[in-house]
Amino acid sequence: MRRERREVRVDLNERSYPIHIGVDLLKDAGLLAQSITARQVMVVSNETVAPLYLPALKAALGDRQVAAVSLPDGEQEKSLESMLPVFDEMLVNGFGRDCQVIALGGGVIGDLAGFVAATYQRGVAFIQIPTTLLAMVDSSVGGKTGVNHPRGKNMIGAFHQPQAVIADLTVLETLPDRELRAGLAEVVKYALLGDAGFIDWLEAHMDEALARDPGVLADIVERCCANKAAIVAADERESGERALLNLGHTFGHAIEAARGYGDWLHGEAIAAGMCMAARMSAGLGWISPADRDRAVALVASAGLPTEPPTDISASRFREFMRRDKKNRDGALRLVLLRGLGDAVVTADYPESALTATLEGSDDD
Amino acid sequence: MRRERREVRVDLNERSYPIHIGVDLLKDAGLLAQSITARQVMVVSNETVAPLYLPALKAALGDRQVAAVSLPDGEQEKSLESMLPVFDEMLVNGFGRDCQVIALGGGVIGDLAGFVAATYQRGVAFIQIPTTLLAMVDSSVGGKTGVNHPRGKNMIGAFHQPQAVIADLTVLETLPDRELRAGLAEVVKYALLGDAGFIDWLEAHMDEALARDPGVLADIVERCCANKAAIVAADERESGERALLNLGHTFGHAIEAARGYGDWLHGEAIAAGMCMAARMSAGLGWISPADRDRAVALVASAGLPTEPPTDISASRFREFMRRDKKNRDGALRLVLLRGLGDAVVTADYPESALTATLEGSDDD
Repeated sequence: MRRERREVRVDLNERSYPIHIGVDLLKDAGLLAQSITARQVMVVSNETVAPLYLPALKAALGDRQVAAVSLPDGEQEKSLESMLPVFDEMLVNGFGRDCQVIALGGGVIGDLAGFVAATYQRGVAFIQIPTTLLAMVDSSVGGKTGVNHPRGKNMIGAFHQPQAVIADLTVLETLPDRELRAGLAEVVKYALLGDAGFIDWLEAHMDEALARDPGVLADIVERCCANKAAIVAADERESGERALLNLGHTFGHAIEAARGYGDWLHGEAIAAGMCMAARMSAGLGWISPADRDRAVALVASAGLPTEPPTDISASRFREFMRRDKKNRDGALRLVLLRGLGDAVVTADYPESALTATLEGSDDD
Repeated sequence: MRRERREVRVDLNERSYPIHIGVDLLKDAGLLAQSITARQVMVVSNETVAPLYLPALKAALGDRQVAAVSLPDGEQEKSLESMLPVFDEMLVNGFGRDCQVIALGGGVIGDLAGFVAATYQRGVAFIQIPTTLLAMVDSSVGGKTGVNHPRGKNMIGAFHQPQAVIADLTVLETLPDRELRAGLAEVVKYALLGDAGFIDWLEAHMDEALARDPGVLADIVERCCANKAAIVAADERESGERALLNLGHTFGHAIEAARGYGDWLHGEAIAAGMCMAARMSAGLGWISPADRDRAVALVASAGLPTEPPTDISASRFREFMRRDKKNRDGALRLVLLRGLGDAVVTADYPESALTATLEGSDDD
């Protein structure tokens, strides 16, 4: 097992920050002290993660004033209502604007705690300690925070960058297999959208990733974070290129919303969504059938679904996709593939191609 | 009546915007078209204001897709819960990130609608159409948005600048007297905190202001907006000077919270709060008893309370003041007067001076 630390920097001028990647980072009092500088610290976690890692984190925080709230686990907790006990705890404890909020958990906790940090007293500092592969490679980096609305995913939120991301690979040892695979969906996403060489690498290393080889996981987290950092640095508030990170998400969010949040994991839904994007791209003649099949096979090799649930009709898909945040002037914008490792955001496609994809009639 | 338009510019680089001040602005289709550029427009108003001005605004918006939500009137509506019907209406209507939110109302509506705009799909454009004097001179300018928490005022929110403020003085004709006086509290605030010449002017013109002389009200709105614009331009996110705008607010917010929001109007609470700040400043020997009396007399001349409610104990005051957003490292920071027209933010005062003020024992 490689013990060295990696650091990826997200370059956003005065909002720049480091992503620390390595093993046993949560036991590194020096790193924690350097990142967590406030006297008042609010830790937001969930009931699965907190028993495993919260006691050690609290111990490392020494004599600071530490408050903690653990929410039930699951996407259905990512709501405005679930923020209330966190605000309450901060106010009861007299937390000021100079406090720090720490997210200790996966994507749900990171998004919710980040939105708490964005809005408590109009904005306080924030540290991400992601405990899932998905959160390490994607959601903890880039400052997107928010919660779901019954009518759509991530519809209420803010851009609020963390001060640091601490990705302790050791915590992946306790991650359930299903969550590991869901994280690999976002990993595959970086490869397909803009890093063709990473496709080759993943095809060669997927089995080791599934076996949790620490060196392979470290390489994966570092490469994904470097990819994401470059995109976020170029387009922090998603006026252009950053929308490419939504590959598979327009279809995937519709799957999540139609099924009710938490039935399909986010990663599972976007895995199927990426395959839909690949099929539609092939249907448009933008990529070859062979490239489509290669993309779908990569998703399948991670043990992820490649088809949406059969019970979502095309009209129901459209109903949820109409609420996607990328849409402009009512036009449905999609992330599609011009090639493997070359995604584009576009509303310039024939309706019939989308219909074929939604109806599943574009398979060979 | 002077018919000319005034324009004050808030200078925040790429977030700069105009404040349009004048009569019959809501009937000016050209100004509205220039400010409201989106195809999808969400108007947030309240049940008092909407019947008076919403039909004309809607008519002026022509063939745009306009949605409207009118909340019950009052400070108790400034909550996370009250945001839900607005988000719902936007999602049902398929509003995208390129929509605009318009606040048509007083400070409560402006703060809430602004926070909706700050957080809908992580931020959309926003126009303020303030319909109270308080909103015109203070809350609509500067980008502070948010809602109350049962444990403290404005505890959840964001900085989100509007694209324009449209202050139509004509709407002040329908403003209840009590609301007009509450707005004058914020007017007096600008004078006391940093514009000594304005104190003289207000002493000479308060009767005309109370009689709603349109030229005097135009002068007042313009001068207050110019004062606020300069402070906001120098310190958008309140890391320093902007906190001076909280003169009277630390005491005032405690009054509002202790009484339950909506019992005392915000302006009434900060009127009493400013008098408390003046008394404490005199108690510290920072201003003379004569200057203290002059400040209190100016507040009284606007028909505003100069004393807090008698039923709030010193310990209850401290309990609410402890949650003030200006506090750092647990120290209670107050805006006090070094002179009339010369406020400072400080935690450097003897506890006994604060106690005397809270107990009302610092009166002569």
